[in-house]
Amino acid sequence: MNAPQAKAPKTAISPTRAENYSEWYQQVVRASDMAELSGVRGCMIIKPNGYGIWELMQRDLDRRFKETGHENCYFPLFIPLSYFQKEADHVEGFAKEMAVVTHHRLSTKNGVLVPDGELEEPLIVRPTSETVIGVAMAKWIKSYRDLPLLVNQWANVVRWEMRPRLLLRTAEFLWQEGHTAHETYEDAMAETRRMHEIYRQFVEEVLALPVVPGEKPANERFPGAVNSFSIEAMMQDGRALQAGTSHYLGQNFSKSLDIQFQNREGNLEHVHTTSWGVSTRLLGALVMAHSDDNGLRVPPRLAPWQVVIVPVLRGDSDKESVLAYCESLKSELQAQTYAGDRLRVKLDKRDISGADKKWDWIKKGAPLVLEIGARDVEGGKVCVTRRDHLDQGKRFPLRSEFIAGIVDELTAIQQGLFDQALAFMTSRTVTDIKTRAAFDAYFGKNDENGFVGNQGFVRAKWSGDLSSLESIDELGVTIRCIPFDQDGKEGVCVLTGKPATQDVIFARAY
Amino acid sequence: MNAPQAKAPKTAISPTRAENYSEWYQQVVRASDMAELSGVRGCMIIKPNGYGIWELMQRDLDRRFKETGHENCYFPLFIPLSYFQKEADHVEGFAKEMAVVTHHRLSTKNGVLVPDGELEEPLIVRPTSETVIGVAMAKWIKSYRDLPLLVNQWANVVRWEMRPRLLLRTAEFLWQEGHTAHETYEDAMAETRRMHEIYRQFVEEVLALPVVPGEKPANERFPGAVNSFSIEAMMQDGRALQAGTSHYLGQNFSKSLDIQFQNREGNLEHVHTTSWGVSTRLLGALVMAHSDDNGLRVPPRLAPWQVVIVPVLRGDSDKESVLAYCESLKSELQAQTYAGDRLRVKLDKRDISGADKKWDWIKKGAPLVLEIGARDVEGGKVCVTRRDHLDQGKRFPLRSEFIAGIVDELTAIQQGLFDQALAFMTSRTVTDIKTRAAFDAYFGKNDENGFVGNQGFVRAKWSGDLSSLESIDELGVTIRCIPFDQDGKEGVCVLTGKPATQDVIFARAY
Repeated sequence: MNAPQAKAPKTAISPTRAENYSEWYQQVVRASDMAELSGVRGCMIIKPNGYGIWELMQRDLDRRFKETGHENCYFPLFIPLSYFQKEADHVEGFAKEMAVVTHHRLSTKNGVLVPDGELEEPLIVRPTSETVIGVAMAKWIKSYRDLPLLVNQWANVVRWEMRPRLLLRTAEFLWQEGHTAHETYEDAMAETRRMHEIYRQFVEEVLALPVVPGEKPANERFPGAVNSFSIEAMMQDGRALQAGTSHYLGQNFSKSLDIQFQNREGNLEHVHTTSWGVSTRLLGALVMAHSDDNGLRVPPRLAPWQVVIVPVLRGDSDKESVLAYCESLKSELQAQTYAGDRLRVKLDKRDISGADKKWDWIKKGAPLVLEIGARDVEGGKVCVTRRDHLDQGKRFPLRSEFIAGIVDELTAIQQGLFDQALAFMTSRTVTDIKTRAAFDAYFGKNDENGFVGNQGFVRAKWSGDLSSLESIDELGVTIRCIPFDQDGKEGVCVLTGKPATQDVIFARAY
Repeated sequence: MNAPQAKAPKTAISPTRAENYSEWYQQVVRASDMAELSGVRGCMIIKPNGYGIWELMQRDLDRRFKETGHENCYFPLFIPLSYFQKEADHVEGFAKEMAVVTHHRLSTKNGVLVPDGELEEPLIVRPTSETVIGVAMAKWIKSYRDLPLLVNQWANVVRWEMRPRLLLRTAEFLWQEGHTAHETYEDAMAETRRMHEIYRQFVEEVLALPVVPGEKPANERFPGAVNSFSIEAMMQDGRALQAGTSHYLGQNFSKSLDIQFQNREGNLEHVHTTSWGVSTRLLGALVMAHSDDNGLRVPPRLAPWQVVIVPVLRGDSDKESVLAYCESLKSELQAQTYAGDRLRVKLDKRDISGADKKWDWIKKGAPLVLEIGARDVEGGKVCVTRRDHLDQGKRFPLRSEFIAGIVDELTAIQQGLFDQALAFMTSRTVTDIKTRAAFDAYFGKNDENGFVGNQGFVRAKWSGDLSSLESIDELGVTIRCIPFDQDGKEGVCVLTGKPATQDVIFARAY
C-alpha cells in the first residue's frame, strides 16, 4: 500500500489512497465539505454536505422504523450516576469515556469565572440511553397489553475519545437508538434480528455498501447485552468498519431497573429488552468505501444534489440565454422521480469560474455534473460528467435523451458503486488460510511504521475459545463477526488447531 | 378565573381551566401523551404524541429555512469556558444557568464511583451556540464572496432551571438556532426581520396561533444582541408566551471572536451577525392556547394523525366486515391531499373498548375521530366526531360525502382554531388604560394566592425610560414587545405620565 508510485497521476486529492490512505481520508472529508474537527477537544462540526447526506440517511431509516411500528420519543441528555451503577457490566463498559457534569452555574471568584453550584449527584452526558429509557419503561409498562413497547430516538451522544478521528470516532456524535421491550425471549430476539436486517438492507440499498451480517463473539458484545449482532463493511484499505449493531439485552436491564409486567396468566415477570443503533459514523464509512483520488462519490440515493448544473459563461453576451436554458433544464429534471423522490437538482450560480465550480462538485461527490455553455444551448445538448466514471470524460447527449434516461442512469450509478465495493470486498476476503503460521504471515507484524502485512477479511474456523484471542491482540486483529451463512463443516481452528465448526471473520477494524 | 362553578360539567380533564389553569395544563400534557418530567432533575421526556407534533413543526420550518437559502450544519454540544468569556454580556446572561462538565471519566475510589480525569478547561453544555459557531465562522469567512453565510442547526440545549415547567421551561429542550453573517447592517437587519416574519407566518398558519410581532425593549434583549424581535402569543389564561425570537447581533460577536472579511474595496471589516430560534416550548404554547377541558386540540397541519378510525365491534360476528370497511376507508382517505401532504390516517386496532379508544384520541387532540360499527357498514356511513366542536356531538354522513368534504373540513378546523384564539386575544387586549392607577387596578397585586388581578395584553403608551419598568416588577408585569404597528400619535406614558408616542404591550408572561 505504501510503495511510492513511479509516476503519480494528477488528482484533486493529495495524497492519493495509495500514497497515504489515512491522510487521503482526512483530505477527502475536508475537500467534500462534510466535516471538520472543531476547537472543542475531540468534537466535530458536521458541515452542509455531510449534514445533507445525514438528513437523507435519517429520513430513509426513520421511514423504515415507523413502518415496523416504532415511535420516536426524546429522553434526557443527562443520566444520573446512580442509574448507571444499577447495571454492573454496563457502567464498567463506559466508565472510562464519560463526560461528567458536576456544577450548574459559573461564579466569579477573584475575578475569574469558575464552576459553582456543585450537584449532589454527578450527571453523565449520555453515552447511550438504556438506563434512562429503562427507568421510563419501568413506569410505563404495567401489563402484557403495553407490550411490545417500541421507541426510537434521534440524539447526540458523548463518549470521550483519547484519539479522535473525524466522523469515525469523535467525543460527540449523532445517532439513533432504538429501545424496545417484549413479553418473551422469542419476541425480543425476533425484534433484534428484524432491526439488524433493516440495517443490512439500508446500508446495502442506500449506502450502496455490501456488508457481512453476523453475531459478535462474546468479548465484543455491547456492555450489558446477551447477544450482539453487527453488519461489517470493508473499507478501501481492507479494514473492517462496524456499520450498525443490534442487541438482545435479555432481562439484564429489566432486572436491574425493575421493568416488570403482568403476563397473560396474571403473574409479574421481567420484560426482555433490545437496543439498536447506527450513527454519523456511516458518513465516515461512505467516504472510506466509495471515494476516489478526486474526492467523494455519493450514491445517488444519498446525494443532497443528484444533478448539479454549472453554467459556463464566456461573457455577458450569452449569459441570459445560457441561464434560461439552465433554469428550464432544472425544472424538467426536477419533475422526474427517482427512488420515490423528485430529483434533487442544483443550479450553481456562484460568481466563480465554471471549471472551479465543476471541480468543487466533483470533490463533493455529486453523481452527475452538467456544464452548459452557449454551444450546448445552440445544439440543444448537455455536457455530462459522471462522477462514478471520471475516466470516461465528458459526453454530449441531446438534452431530451439525457432527461429521458436520467432515472436509469442514476439507478446504474447506485448499482455500480455497490458492485465495485462488492467486487473489492470479495477480492480481499481470504478463505484459504488454515494454519496459525499462514494467519500470522497474512496479517504481518506491527512495526514502528504500523502494520506491514495485508489488510482484508480472513474467513476461517474458530474454536470459540475466547482465551485464544489474546494471542492475536498484538496483531491488532479481532473477530468482526460470526457470519450468519455457515457451512457447518468440521474443520480446525486457525488459531489453536483444535476442532472447530464455526466460521468467523478476522480483520483489523476502525 | 378561580371562582368555583355552580355545577361543573363532566370533563375528561380535571381540574378544568376555570378551576385551576396551571394544574389543568399539567393534566392535559399528561393525558395527551405529549411529555412528562423525568427522574433527571428538570429534564423532560417528550413522548410519541408530543414528538410527532414536533417532527411536523420541524419539517415545515426546515422547508421554510431551506427555501430562504439556509443550510443545516451541526456544531459541538460543548463550549469551552474561554469562548464564552470573550463576549461579556453574553456570558453574564447565561452564567447562572450553565451545566458544567469538569471530568471525562469515572473511577472507583474506596468502592465508590467518582468523577475522575479533571479537564484543564471546563466545558459548558451549550445554552446557545453564538460563540462556538462564531469561532467556526471566523475560520470559514475570508472575503465578501463568502457572505452571506446562512446556517441553521437542530439541537438540544441546556439552561439550568430552578423552577422547571413541563415543555415551557426545562433544563434541557430541543430547538433550532439559525446563525448568519453578512457584509452590512442593512443585509443583517433584513435577515433578522425576514426570519422573524417566517416565524410569524409559521406560528399563525401552522400552529393556528395569532401573535403580536414586535421589537423587545432594551432590558429584554438577548444577551449580546443589539436588537431583539419576538412574536408574542396569548395563552388561555391571558398571559403572554414568547413564541420565537430573532436577533440582530451587530458586530458584538464578530469583534469579540474576530470574524473579519475582505470587503469589496479590499479592506478588512467585521461581519454583522444574526441569530434566531424557536424551541419545543411551542408544544407548550399549543397546549395552553388550543386545549379545552377534554384535553388537547391539535391543528390539522400538526396532527400526527388527522383522522383516527375506531372500529366498534359488538362481537366476533361483525369483526371481519367492520375491519374490512375501516381498511378501505383508511385507504381512500390516505389518497387525499391536505396542505401538500397525503392525509395521515390511523386505524386503531388496539384490544380495548371502542369508547376508551375514542376518548384516548379526544384527549390526544386528533381533529377527526370516526367510530365505525356494523350499522355504519350497512348504511355506507361514518360516525364523525369533530374535536374542535365536541359540543355538536356525532354526525352520520354518507361515507362518500365525508370523503369528498374531508379537505374542506380540515381546512375549516385549522381556520376555526385560529379564529377562536384570535377572538380570545382580541377580547383580552385592553387599549383604554391611560393612567398608572388604572394600570395597577387592572393587573392587581401579588398576594399569597398569586396575582389576583386581570391577565391580558395592555396596549398603552410608554416613554422608553427603562428605569420606569422597575416600578412594575412587583406586579410581575413586563413589556412583551413594541409592536410593529404603531399609530405614531402623541400621548402620555401609562407608567410615568411623561409624553410618549410609542405603543407597547404589557403583560404577565410564561
